[in-house]
Formats: sequence, structure tokens, C-alpha cells
Amino acid sequence: MIREVYERYGFEPLETPAFENLDTLVGKYGEEGNKLIFKILKRGEHEATGAADLALRYDLTVPLSRVVAQYQHELPKFFKRFQIQPVWRADRPAKGRFREFYQCDIDAIGSTSPVVEADILGSVSEVLSKLGFSDFVIRLNDRRALGALLECAGVPEPLHADALIALDKLDKVGVDGVHNELTTRGIDAAATRRSLDFFRGLAQEEPHGGGRLQRLREFVAGDQKGTDAVKSLDDIVQLADGTEAHGHIQIDPSLARGLSYYTGAIMEIAVPDLAGSLGGGGRYDNLIGMFLGREVPACGFSLGLERLIVVMTERKMFPDRVARNAVEVLVTIWNDDSRGDSLRLARELRAQGLRVDVYPEPDKLGKQLKYASACQVPVVAIVGDDERARADVSIKDMRSGDQRSVSRADAAAGILEWLKR
Amino acid sequence: MIREVYERYGFEPLETPAFENLDTLVGKYGEEGNKLIFKILKRGEHEATGAADLALRYDLTVPLSRVVAQYQHELPKFFKRFQIQPVWRADRPAKGRFREFYQCDIDAIGSTSPVVEADILGSVSEVLSKLGFSDFVIRLNDRRALGALLECAGVPEPLHADALIALDKLDKVGVDGVHNELTTRGIDAAATRRSLDFFRGLAQEEPHGGGRLQRLREFVAGDQKGTDAVKSLDDIVQLADGTEAHGHIQIDPSLARGLSYYTGAIMEIAVPDLAGSLGGGGRYDNLIGMFLGREVPACGFSLGLERLIVVMTERKMFPDRVARNAVEVLVTIWNDDSRGDSLRLARELRAQGLRVDVYPEPDKLGKQLKYASACQVPVVAIVGDDERARADVSIKDMRSGDQRSVSRADAAAGILEWLKR
Repeated sequence: MIREVYERYGFEPLETPAFENLDTLVGKYGEEGNKLIFKILKRGEHEATGAADLALRYDLTVPLSRVVAQYQHELPKFFKRFQIQPVWRADRPAKGRFREFYQCDIDAIGSTSPVVEADILGSVSEVLSKLGFSDFVIRLNDRRALGALLECAGVPEPLHADALIALDKLDKVGVDGVHNELTTRGIDAAATRRSLDFFRGLAQEEPHGGGRLQRLREFVAGDQKGTDAVKSLDDIVQLADGTEAHGHIQIDPSLARGLSYYTGAIMEIAVPDLAGSLGGGGRYDNLIGMFLGREVPACGFSLGLERLIVVMTERKMFPDRVARNAVEVLVTIWNDDSRGDSLRLARELRAQGLRVDVYPEPDKLGKQLKYASACQVPVVAIVGDDERARADVSIKDMRSGDQRSVSRADAAAGILEWLKR
Repeated sequence: MIREVYERYGFEPLETPAFENLDTLVGKYGEEGNKLIFKILKRGEHEATGAADLALRYDLTVPLSRVVAQYQHELPKFFKRFQIQPVWRADRPAKGRFREFYQCDIDAIGSTSPVVEADILGSVSEVLSKLGFSDFVIRLNDRRALGALLECAGVPEPLHADALIALDKLDKVGVDGVHNELTTRGIDAAATRRSLDFFRGLAQEEPHGGGRLQRLREFVAGDQKGTDAVKSLDDIVQLADGTEAHGHIQIDPSLARGLSYYTGAIMEIAVPDLAGSLGGGGRYDNLIGMFLGREVPACGFSLGLERLIVVMTERKMFPDRVARNAVEVLVTIWNDDSRGDSLRLARELRAQGLRVDVYPEPDKLGKQLKYASACQVPVVAIVGDDERARADVSIKDMRSGDQRSVSRADAAAGILEWLKR
């Protein structure tokens, strides 16, 4: 379903290798991220040195950026790709957090236009709607706005990273908690007060309305980058209004996102019953440049497959019967002499499109029927001595108990008719 | 296509993690194999020690055996699974040989019956036939027959492994080459002569006929294990005759297969225009026991996806147009004011099932049309000032050059009609 939506939005499929050169990954995910990269030991005589030269994909964004830099001359000016592959992080496993997990990414390369953000948010919103989610919230912010906010609050530049870590906890520890965090991290009383006053004011605004953006606009009015960021956020909200993201976006100036490569819009999607997010993304206009030597604008979003599955399972959002291409017929084996005949019958039935298993060895018929029943195989085909003599086959519907003899030629048709019941 | 055939043969899907504990893999693939395992450096403070505790899947058979041992009480008595996932080997890359490649495995657990081998060979043969191969050869041998052959030739047990490595090269270096290899490896003149006499005799038999098996039967007549193996090979050939493997099997007593875990039948599939094989497999009745403590019989086969692709590409076996879910419509952007309208139109068209891309930014119309043309997008939708005033849309068929105005409500239907032409 995810792939179908991504393709309908014009994203092309891409897969990348599980490994990247260690150098490609290190330094792209912040200090915490660096520690969580799985590193691969050098091979051969170098193994004894304990040195690592390769690493496993930590996300799909950095490998994409490497690919874009490497194949720049073969890609269209605007390159939109989706990628659904596992990534690996040496994290402590928890609910919905695994060391190997699937990311479902879309990225649009080549344009700084806010149309890109709107189209991406529309696409992931349609995925979530199609999966049956209606209560998801898209938190939207901009890295430049965050910087301006701290600047205008009087947090000195060298402490911005510390302040961001503190502010990022606002929805978890509240205003008082963040006050302590900021103070502990060496932010002075005046800057702490100004920051928190801003967030207190913000809390009085409708989450979905324009009031939050207006307060942000006023607070960063003296800062050019901040003003640009607010304009861009406004554009994204307006444009996304015409997409499936309509009604889901909340401006959230406390959203920081951990990864260090973001440069503009940042976004995260959450539902009330999951700590952490279902996915996140943002604009990273400098990352490809780190490989290519010239800047290429880019923006992307990543949905976490296992997170979706955890919530959908808990909410019982999956249909009772997920289509499972299970075995439809078990062909029994009477004795050693009849084994070849059973395999031939299986071949004939498979040629008619039936999914057929063969009991692997001669055994009491009752035991074979019991096995079919335990495995929930709906139909059993029996080629015993009598059937072989008559060149026919007995078929038994395990659900109704019906049994009848049919010619070999009619066996598949008879079974297919039963399966339709 | 591979998955569809495997499912029709009653194999169930399984995926396993990319990592296994290093201990799980080491010692299962022979000495050469051990060296080619990618090992993952321990994390955190242990990283400095250079020690590895995890490793990447080297094949899909050992992980399956680990899973069967771990979940023994949740699996049916006869467990048939397919698995199509990448594996990693620190090998020197060559034509059709990559460090990351996909294996397409089927395995049947729980029975020692030759019906299992016949069903597996039938299944992979149907895959190859469906893909368009008609000239593939299944080389079939038995590990026990190999042992008996060497025993009867007078090769002492401690030199069996060396002799196997030499004999395995028979199809590459011929009888004279193997003579030198055997001598170099310390096999005495009499045993070398007896072995090579046997293979010279074998070469006079029809590859597909029963003569080879008859010569093997006579040569190992004094060895019980060898006699059992010949009986089992005969059974497999007879049973496989009723499957899609019919006509493809050749008994080949020189086939050794590298992996150390095989215990009975071994098989390999080759085509004349590829050095190496398209896939291989065999019976490994002891491997699960290494994890479980009690023996569980098992047999499997693995097709190499990249090998198939290499040969199919060279032989031009792929259809001219492999179905590609490419973009069908490009929605252009007139100016900043019209961006929202373009996104809304894209949403309407996508809701009708069309695959739609939006040009991300306002640009000269000619440039946007040129871009659509370069990307081979068949239809362009234009929402300019005039169209917005009339609440309609201009659609242009890039293949014919046709252009017309339609109401927004009729746009999708008009485009879908064009796409059918």
C-alpha cells in the first residue's frame, strides 16, 4: 500500500547496498548517531587490527545523497525516489524500536520550492489515511526558525545545540522541566525566561490555527533567517492545505529532530498512543554537497514500518484475514510405489494454478489427513491403489467432509469449484 | 515469478534478520567460507577491543536451521519455507559475483524421503522454465557416494577432503589436470589411477541415461553407505521424472559442492554460457542438530538472483518493456499564486489512480514541457491564469502533440482515455 501511494505521487524505486564506506556515514547523524552505527571489521590479514572500513546503512537519506552525488549526470534535474529497505542501529531495543527495521522513505532532489514539502506531506498523509489512520498530527518547524528563536531569546550561538536538546523535551517534561534543563546546560536566567515565555504564550494558541506562526513571526522579527523561515513555513502550510495533509499540520517551534543534516523545514508525525513518532523528515540542502562539492537542495520523509505495525496491531486495524497465499491442496502418498504418481498429480494441479503440497513420505492415511487438518489445508487429494488402478483420484473437502472420485483430468476443476464455496 | 512458483509448490515465506551471532555462522561453511564472513565490530566501550560478536548472513540455510531449532514447537512437522533475501560474502567481485547478492531459497524440513529432493528439483526447474530457460542441466550427486567412491578407489580417509577438491575441478581441468592435482595432494598412484579410470569410464556413458549410475553402483558395491546413496540417487531420478525436472538431470559423481554441511544428495544447476552455477543445494540432515541437539532431516536449494539476471540479460531474455510504474502525468506550475491549484489538481488526478508528478517550482512553460518530454511523461496538465479563471485545465498529449481544455472534473477521464491509445 505504501509503495502504491508513493508511486502514484511520482516517486521512483531505488535500492542501495546494505554497506556504505564508514567515512560516508560518520559525522552525518550527530554524536549520538555516530555511536549507533554498526561497523564491519576489515577482512583478511587486516582483521587482526580490529579496524573497520564499512558500515551498515543507518538511514536511507545519506545513502541516497551518496547515490545522487555519484550518478549526478544520469539523474533527472528533479529526482524523486522512494526506498523501502531495512536500516540498522545499535540501539537498545524497546517497544517499536529494533536494531534492524524498515524505513519507507521518499525524497525529492533538486528544488528549494515549498511545493516539495507540501507534496511530500501530502504523500505520507495519504499513506496514513489509506492505512486507516485519521488522528495523526504532523508537527512542523524549521531549523532556521529554531536558530533565530534562540538568537532572539539571547542564547549565545555556542549553546544553541544544548538549548535545542533541552527544548526538544518540552512535550515530555513540560515548561518547568525544560527550565531546569536549560539552567543546567548553562543558559543564563534572562535567555531561559525569554525562551520559556515564548513557549508559554504559544501554548495559548489553537494548535492548528495561524496564531502560533504569528507569535513566531513576531518573536523572530529582527532576524532575517528567522523571517525567511516563517515565510517558508507559511507557504508550506498554505500549499499543504490542498493536499491530503489538510487538517493534520501543527506548527511546533519546539520540534528539533536529532539528525544533524537538516537545514530548513523539519517535520514529524505522531499519534497519541505511541511514544516517539511514526516518521519524520525535513529539508537537507547541504548534505549532497558534502559528497559532491556543490550544493543540491533536497527534502525527504521517512515512515517507520515497524512503528506503523505496532500501532496498527494494538488498534486492531489489520483486517481479520490478511491475504495469505496458503496451501490449497495436500496430495497424500499411499506407498513407495505410488510416490511418483503423487508427484505427477501435484504437477498437474499446480499447472492449473493451485497451490499444492505433497506429503513427503508414505504414512497411514489417517495421519496424513490429520496433518492436512492441523495445517488448515482445505482439500486433500488421495492416490491410493484403487485410484491408481482406475486412473482417477479421490478428493476430500476437509471443511465439509465431502469426498468424491474424479478422473485425473477433472481433479483440478473439481477442487477449484470446492475452493470457491 | 520465483515467489509465485515457490508458493504454488507449498513453500511458505520466511524472512530472518541480517545478523546472526558470529558463533552461529562460524564453522558451517568450510575453512574458505569462514574467511568470507562479514563480521560486525562490538559496540560501545568494547569497540576498542576490535572484537566481533555478530556477523552478516552468509547464506539462508544456516539462519533457517537456527530458526527451526529456536521455534521447533511452533512449526509444523514438515516445514517448507522459501526465503528471498540478500546475503553477504567478503569475496572478490567478478562477473555475476557480488559481495551483496540475493539468494532465492527453498527448504523442506522434517523428512528423509527422496520425494523431498524430487519436489525441490521440480520447483526450481519450473522457475527456470517459466523464466525462459530450456537448456539448464541439473548435476546430481550424493556426499555419501563421494565418500564411498574415494574409499573404494583406495584414498585414505584423511585425504578425502583433498581428493574432493581435486575431483571437483574435473569439468574445468580435465582428467590430466586432476591427475596432477591428486598426485600433488599426496594421493598415491594406485588410488589416483583407480579414481581416474572410473571417471574415464563414466565419460563414455550418455549424460542423461542410467549408465552412469550403473557404473557408480558397481564401483561402490562393496561399501554399504555408497550402495544406500546409489539407491537414493536412483529414487530421486525416478521420482523427478514426473516433475518439471524431467530431462534435465545428469548423475555427476565428480560434483562435490563446497559447503561443509551437506550429508546426502547434492545438486547444482548450470547453463553452458555461465562459469559457475545458477544455483545449488542438497540434503543437510545434521545442521539443525548442531543447534537443537537432536537431528532433524532437511534438504534445500538456492537460486542466485544476480546470476539469473546476468544470463537473462546477455541472452536478451527480458521482454523489451518490463512493466515500470512510471509517471503518467506532469502537472505544471504557472506562478507562485497557482502552486496550490496545481497541487490540488494533482490530488484530484491521483485520487483517480493516475501516477502524477508536480513540477516543483514556477518556470517557463516551454521548460516544463521539455522536462516532461525528457522524462518520457506522456501527458502534461497545465493550470495557467486562463485555466484558473475558467476553472478548467489544459491537457497535452506529449506523444501526439494533441492539446485540449477540459473541466477539472473531466480531466482524469480525458487523460485516462489518452493513456489507452
